Amino acid sequence: MEKITVGVIGATGMVGQQYICLLENHPWFEVVCVAASQRCAGKPYREAVDGRWHMHGDIPAAVANLTVMDASDVDAVSGRCRFVFSAVGMGKQAVRELENRYAAGGTPVVSNNSAHRTTPDVPVLIPEVNAYHLDAIATQQANHDWDGGFVVVKPNCSVQSYLIPVHALATAGYPVRSLVVTMLQGLSGAGYPGVSALDIVDNIVPFISGEEEKSESEPLKIMGAVSGRGIAPMDNLTISAHCTRVPVLDGHSACVSMGFGDPKPGLEEIERIWREFTSVPQDLKLPSAPPRPIMISTVPDRPQPRKDRLAGKGMAITVGRLRPCNVLDYRFVGLSHNTIRGAAGGGILNAELLKARGLL
Amino acid sequence: MEKITVGVIGATGMVGQQYICLLENHPWFEVVCVAASQRCAGKPYREAVDGRWHMHGDIPAAVANLTVMDASDVDAVSGRCRFVFSAVGMGKQAVRELENRYAAGGTPVVSNNSAHRTTPDVPVLIPEVNAYHLDAIATQQANHDWDGGFVVVKPNCSVQSYLIPVHALATAGYPVRSLVVTMLQGLSGAGYPGVSALDIVDNIVPFISGEEEKSESEPLKIMGAVSGRGIAPMDNLTISAHCTRVPVLDGHSACVSMGFGDPKPGLEEIERIWREFTSVPQDLKLPSAPPRPIMISTVPDRPQPRKDRLAGKGMAITVGRLRPCNVLDYRFVGLSHNTIRGAAGGGILNAELLKARGLL
Amino acid sequence: MEKITVGVIGATGMVGQQYICLLENHPWFEVVCVAASQRCAGKPYREAVDGRWHMHGDIPAAVANLTVMDASDVDAVSGRCRFVFSAVGMGKQAVRELENRYAAGGTPVVSNNSAHRTTPDVPVLIPEVNAYHLDAIATQQANHDWDGGFVVVKPNCSVQSYLIPVHALATAGYPVRSLVVTMLQGLSGAGYPGVSALDIVDNIVPFISGEEEKSESEPLKIMGAVSGRGIAPMDNLTISAHCTRVPVLDGHSACVSMGFGDPKPGLEEIERIWREFTSVPQDLKLPSAPPRPIMISTVPDRPQPRKDRLAGKGMAITVGRLRPCNVLDYRFVGLSHNTIRGAAGGGILNAELLKARGLL
Amino acid sequence: MEKITVGVIGATGMVGQQYICLLENHPWFEVVCVAASQRCAGKPYREAVDGRWHMHGDIPAAVANLTVMDASDVDAVSGRCRFVFSAVGMGKQAVRELENRYAAGGTPVVSNNSAHRTTPDVPVLIPEVNAYHLDAIATQQANHDWDGGFVVVKPNCSVQSYLIPVHALATAGYPVRSLVVTMLQGLSGAGYPGVSALDIVDNIVPFISGEEEKSESEPLKIMGAVSGRGIAPMDNLTISAHCTRVPVLDGHSACVSMGFGDPKPGLEEIERIWREFTSVPQDLKLPSAPPRPIMISTVPDRPQPRKDRLAGKGMAITVGRLRPCNVLDYRFVGLSHNTIRGAAGGGILNAELLKARGLL
Repeated sequence: MEKITVGVIGATGMVGQQYICLLENHPWFEVVCVAASQRCAGKPYREAVDGRWHMHGDIPAAVANLTVMDASDVDAVSGRCRFVFSAVGMGKQAVRELENRYAAGGTPVVSNNSAHRTTPDVPVLIPEVNAYHLDAIATQQANHDWDGGFVVVKPNCSVQSYLIPVHALATAGYPVRSLVVTMLQGLSGAGYPGVSALDIVDNIVPFISGEEEKSESEPLKIMGAVSGRGIAPMDNLTISAHCTRVPVLDGHSACVSMGFGDPKPGLEEIERIWREFTSVPQDLKLPSAPPRPIMISTVPDRPQPRKDRLAGKGMAITVGRLRPCNVLDYRFVGLSHNTIRGAAGGGILNAELLKARGLL
Repeated sequence: MEKITVGVIGATGMVGQQYICLLENHPWFEVVCVAASQRCAGKPYREAVDGRWHMHGDIPAAVANLTVMDASDVDAVSGRCRFVFSAVGMGKQAVRELENRYAAGGTPVVSNNSAHRTTPDVPVLIPEVNAYHLDAIATQQANHDWDGGFVVVKPNCSVQSYLIPVHALATAGYPVRSLVVTMLQGLSGAGYPGVSALDIVDNIVPFISGEEEKSESEPLKIMGAVSGRGIAPMDNLTISAHCTRVPVLDGHSACVSMGFGDPKPGLEEIERIWREFTSVPQDLKLPSAPPRPIMISTVPDRPQPRKDRLAGKGMAITVGRLRPCNVLDYRFVGLSHNTIRGAAGGGILNAELLKARGLL
Repeated sequence: MEKITVGVIGATGMVGQQYICLLENHPWFEVVCVAASQRCAGKPYREAVDGRWHMHGDIPAAVANLTVMDASDVDAVSGRCRFVFSAVGMGKQAVRELENRYAAGGTPVVSNNSAHRTTPDVPVLIPEVNAYHLDAIATQQANHDWDGGFVVVKPNCSVQSYLIPVHALATAGYPVRSLVVTMLQGLSGAGYPGVSALDIVDNIVPFISGEEEKSESEPLKIMGAVSGRGIAPMDNLTISAHCTRVPVLDGHSACVSMGFGDPKPGLEEIERIWREFTSVPQDLKLPSAPPRPIMISTVPDRPQPRKDRLAGKGMAITVGRLRPCNVLDYRFVGLSHNTIRGAAGGGILNAELLKARGLL
Repeated sequence: MEKITVGVIGATGMVGQQYICLLENHPWFEVVCVAASQRCAGKPYREAVDGRWHMHGDIPAAVANLTVMDASDVDAVSGRCRFVFSAVGMGKQAVRELENRYAAGGTPVVSNNSAHRTTPDVPVLIPEVNAYHLDAIATQQANHDWDGGFVVVKPNCSVQSYLIPVHALATAGYPVRSLVVTMLQGLSGAGYPGVSALDIVDNIVPFISGEEEKSESEPLKIMGAVSGRGIAPMDNLTISAHCTRVPVLDGHSACVSMGFGDPKPGLEEIERIWREFTSVPQDLKLPSAPPRPIMISTVPDRPQPRKDRLAGKGMAITVGRLRPCNVLDYRFVGLSHNTIRGAAGGGILNAELLKARGLL
């Protein structure tokens, strides 16, 4: 099979670098084009990231010598590749315009950015949760009169750790009605240079700008219903999120209390549902899909970010400490890798879903 | 005024060391006796803590040369001092027996240990919250037929950061009915050597053995009613606590969601109540009482443990980020210094209250 | 005694903030003027540092409401104060020009910047080491035809930990001829935001740009001879410095091997010299002078930055682990607080020396 | 080819766990026996390490269900396997006796322990450096009248980072005569629980008991000459080592100054030698041998432990920052992974060398 050509726009940033590493030797996709801001354009990629390459290991050889293109030169970039991963660092309005220009030109955009997450006809995808939201693409294309191009996005890196377990329960017939979530989020979520060491050594910071709003609202859209007018957020789930920054390199931990409607499952039932949960990506055998999206930790002091974040090659959620909650019904701890499942890995899984569904 | 003589039993441990430092130059109390396990007995204190002195600064000169006594030699220790601070590291049953022996001998015991916290006639004191629980001492003495001696304890180091703010609201007429609390607790709470660096660098641990149970039950007793039969835990508050360990030296942070009964205060009302809150220790001008028990942080990313833990010399609680909660009514972040307000400083404030009330 | 008025230029940066904190309640000096870049000029100081106040505790009240002046408006700033502390963040050439303009206008400049450290007629002062370099001020004023104004600077924050001990030995008749120094430097040395947390959690960085050159050359000038032509670096000491960054907030540790000429002291002789060492600041009883400039740690695993950096209120050097070296003669570990002795505290001590010598 | 059976004694400790992980799927060796202290004997391995399994990933399935044997039951253990890896945690004398008992019974012992490092007829092996020391095995067997059994050991984890580069230069005709080394050592070097988090957050510790002596003496034996009487340490190299502990999980960094005799190489010559260096393990294509034992980092702020410790799967040394030294001749930074190359990986490479040379 010939590989599908892909461009990474915003290729020099941390998420862009993560894409380039995760796509090395990908069975379906091949990075043939890297684009960034005008400042980097024209340089070999190797040179453009000199002194700010943050991945383990070297720059994949096939990409190191690509000449960085100007991401705003949409025709030139689109001419090189079948679709793009977008991880640009710009203001929301600018991102929306840029991604729309790619889509208008016929190029599918698999985005990591928050800009389009509230756009009603843009799916916010977690393939295990809402593959059916792909139906909104037709609406999106009709709304814009686009032909072939479209935009899909992935959610904020904070939601995976609790949303996938909650979705698994809903699918099994136990819809969660309320969630109180406290997030302990890793440093890489803030990008590079991100958090100053002077702010986080011997310290935690109990606030991350904009993060709580995303953590509270995005899940409602992700679990919402699709109609001809786009995606309507679900209205019978309430989330309270408290987001803190902790001195952990990678990995977002969630301390979750959840309340059910009726019926309410038992502890063993919840464990069984999580253990057995698989979904569309597993059925389709998508290359980046973890065999088990939810791993259950049985030791009492896990999941821990450093020890568990690479479960399922960074694509699985690890849960543990399931127990009753005095105020709502149950509590648990969820963990996901914020730059793999929560960023580039999640984007790649979205693209794999698109491909499997014939949309690429 | 002649100072009141005091002994520290468990003087070589971390809390014991903290007591000795905080009591240096105390206006009312003077450490004249240090006691520990038999293994240390007979050595000069300086020598007994050699290589395991964890405080900043040197051993207070007046204590360095005291000969360590055997804490189990109750008569000898009691003969030297008017009362004792107890911070021994033993099993619960052994602690209870030891503290009872001191009390039976006529020596008041101001304890840091958890052993007696569930004993109905033993007050678990936070002087700003439940000074009225001192009334249980008479019951305690009657129950045991003790004369002069008694035991009071302080609560677990995790509860101060949310309980004082919650109590302030209750006192103002707004009782809290439900609390979901996620604690991010500092390393010193585990004692020394405590947490291995290999477990906490680039990591957090979402579990602390026994801590959640204490965080959920102790506040109910602290806010309970006193009768001739002892202290009855309040029964119209429900707490769900999730305790995690983070790489912070000192300071326990609490991310709190709280639900009120009726009436429910407004945001500004809550802030005003916290800002104006003072209580018995402030009225009595106890030496260790912070002028303002609750400090309000107005910057959005505070309180932070490293920057705020020493507020009020480590005796004040700092709160911030008060805002509505989607699930319960409001959320906030509370912070307290776990080895000062949460341990030795809290014990000293208890003793000051006892003295002011004529019980020492 | 009326206090001497002082301005802080570069007042909004980290070193400027440190100056403002350390000068609160200073017995001789009073901050009456704060200056910074044009961008901040005109704002109240409180507002200019909003969101980037990095000191413990609040902004000193007397300074919080001062209006920030434009540091380049030399006449206006000079008109307000007797002398200035300079901690501006600009290029070398710009710093030199600015500081010269203040000096030319008759205002003494006590600088924290590296710009003038290699200027032959500008003393690089550590008052315990080279108070006699004040003699170069007359030369400096003559060279420039300045009247009353002059510039003195303090050395890089990395040199204090080994240079004061080495100087004490030289003074006692044991000149050191070669030094191999490995520095483990704290994060605050890089300013704010400085080092990204992503670069230093679970890591060290074995390089700090420009730091080794300063660590190798500045001591030679500090220990040099003064003549009518300025200060000539000493030429019979050779230093090899290796500077690394470690995840420590404050405190620079030096692992030092030193070789002597003839005669060579014994171990006990070195310890005695260090223990007994005092110098001009102690003789003059300067307010910021530590009673003992060199503290000797006797436990084998000290000095440690977190436990020892505040020795002598951050103005003393702590040394330990003195022992023979297989290659040179002896090894030891030195520690100094990089933002107190190594920055603002060192600058204040310089100003105190100037005042005591009648130069302010 | 049938795999060679091997036992791991001390299998429950950190180094033992590391052996078990690194040997999973080893092409030549198969772990068929795990042994530990009597306390663990009789339990399934999985159970014996419950709550103290510190490796990433799960216990290799083939080992998890092995019954732990008593390491002191030499006959039983020896009966199960062709040779043993020894990583027991006992006193020196006890280790020597135990390892001798295995050797006396005909079982080769590849040891991680320091006990036998100073025994003249026991080779301290780094296969890239002193494969010729295998000649001492015959002497050892003759001295003890052992038939088939013998003991070889690996050096302390601190020496690899500077000794392999120094050896490469010596082999190329440029013998180093003096070394001043400052080590910044990772936490895992202290085992588990090892260093308390309270001692190392916001701190470094400038001392590791016994480590400097090993770092100074072991290289002399490793580079020594073999004769019929055993191994004589080289006498024309002098090492001064300063060992510090830093808050890094894995990886020992060395800041090295080195002085040559005659002739002295140029900078480019040194780089060329290091880049081209290969030795016996590469010639023999040993499975664990890194293709390039010495990797050269060309960016100025590397090697860094977190970013470079896994070079060559943790078996390569990374060097960087080669530059002149003012006191000796040159300086550089070396880095090695202390639990792979410096512990279990080094032991496995030793066993591979033994096998290739027909000694297993």
